[in-house]
Amino acid sequence: MRIALGISYLGTAYQGWQSQPSGQTVQDKLEAALAAFATAPVGTLCAGRTDAGVHGLMQVVHFDTDLVREPFSWVRGTNRFLPPDIAVQWATPVQDAFHARASALARRYTYVMLESPVRPSVDAGRVGWVFRALDAAAMQRAAALLIGEHDFTSFRASACQALTPVKQLRHIGINRRGAYWRFDFEANAFLHHMIRNIMGCLVAVGQGLQPPEWMGEVLAARDRDAAAPTFSPDGLYFLGPRYDAHWGLPERTAAYDGLP
Amino acid sequence: MRIALGISYLGTAYQGWQSQPSGQTVQDKLEAALAAFATAPVGTLCAGRTDAGVHGLMQVVHFDTDLVREPFSWVRGTNRFLPPDIAVQWATPVQDAFHARASALARRYTYVMLESPVRPSVDAGRVGWVFRALDAAAMQRAAALLIGEHDFTSFRASACQALTPVKQLRHIGINRRGAYWRFDFEANAFLHHMIRNIMGCLVAVGQGLQPPEWMGEVLAARDRDAAAPTFSPDGLYFLGPRYDAHWGLPERTAAYDGLP
Repeated sequence: MRIALGISYLGTAYQGWQSQPSGQTVQDKLEAALAAFATAPVGTLCAGRTDAGVHGLMQVVHFDTDLVREPFSWVRGTNRFLPPDIAVQWATPVQDAFHARASALARRYTYVMLESPVRPSVDAGRVGWVFRALDAAAMQRAAALLIGEHDFTSFRASACQALTPVKQLRHIGINRRGAYWRFDFEANAFLHHMIRNIMGCLVAVGQGLQPPEWMGEVLAARDRDAAAPTFSPDGLYFLGPRYDAHWGLPERTAAYDGLP
Repeated sequence: MRIALGISYLGTAYQGWQSQPSGQTVQDKLEAALAAFATAPVGTLCAGRTDAGVHGLMQVVHFDTDLVREPFSWVRGTNRFLPPDIAVQWATPVQDAFHARASALARRYTYVMLESPVRPSVDAGRVGWVFRALDAAAMQRAAALLIGEHDFTSFRASACQALTPVKQLRHIGINRRGAYWRFDFEANAFLHHMIRNIMGCLVAVGQGLQPPEWMGEVLAARDRDAAAPTFSPDGLYFLGPRYDAHWGLPERTAAYDGLP
């Protein structure tokens, strides 16, 4: 039987999602907990790997198992073996044709940014930080230049393993609530470091170091050196994939409501 | 010269506010950082001590010093020596008659609670947790019975050092946003564990284990054994004191905007 899980985690303590020999990744912790509950090895495939320090509000994985349990038993049983900063939010049986990565129609991320003269404290590791004021209108003009299907080579890390640098960026939403900004992103898929590289450029525009049109020049250059430095992972949250409704999977978790 | 500081911190890693021989308290970290910046010992007095695991969004302290610096130099200079989960938010010179504790007219706290079948993960240590649904109307009726000047002995920890158990509870606000509840409290002062003990009783009422009127019986009993167990410190935030406007101190910090 194929099972899909929704997972939330704080990435601060982990070397990213993907399994490594160190065992200090979210996937390693999840698979160890699933194996402890199922008393058998369990290999998972995820919707989108996250980097070290990046958080997940609804990572989705699938795996195959012979063990027959009620869906919520998978949740409760696996959570017993997970560290406090990782939790399975939901579990549901899915058709064998479902694939956490290949079935995903889109990925959604949000970047949370503190604008303050003083660095983060209560939420250190959980938000990005700028001490100079950001100009919403300038950032929105710059962001609009990225919407659509483009070659995003300028925003791609050299280690990126994607087959093509052409992605369809469908949405960038920029909103503030007091001292906190939220930058919401949706694309069919993202290149490695793409959001953190875009964030570096949006902040440069928001602080008036570059005009909004510069974002179009960076995009057109198809050259990583044209863009700003990669922004901190601290404020980046993987909201999760979008799937066709016929799979019947949840579209969000309670963890969404905890963001500023 | 007397200086007042506003401090924000995540309490998870510390044994509460007040200095201890271990040195693992927020006050110890703050005074070490002030001493490093001022190159002289600095002793601070705070508006309200917080317990182990309780957070602060605007603790206020005062201290006396001969060192003359611009206010923001105290902020920036002290923050350089503080760990990432503690930050000075503001500094301002005050008249010698100002006293962080004695001048406080009121204290404000908020308790953040996750209501979800699944335990916290992304915000482990930062929110309380209930897995059974809470009834807002029942909790509001129970909370109303506590408003006013009362003997709060039933909600007082045995270790409490307050001179009197009579406090004036001015406000309890109960609001939810998705899966997250906020319980806001304001009183002239609070007894040791008073809010966590009230939270235990509010949750008992909210989950239907006790009727709202039971809160009045608990209060009238003046007996700690009448109340529910002390609730977890994880979701408790000291918002800060209120002072008369003539002192000219800030009423909030940017950290307020980061709460759910």
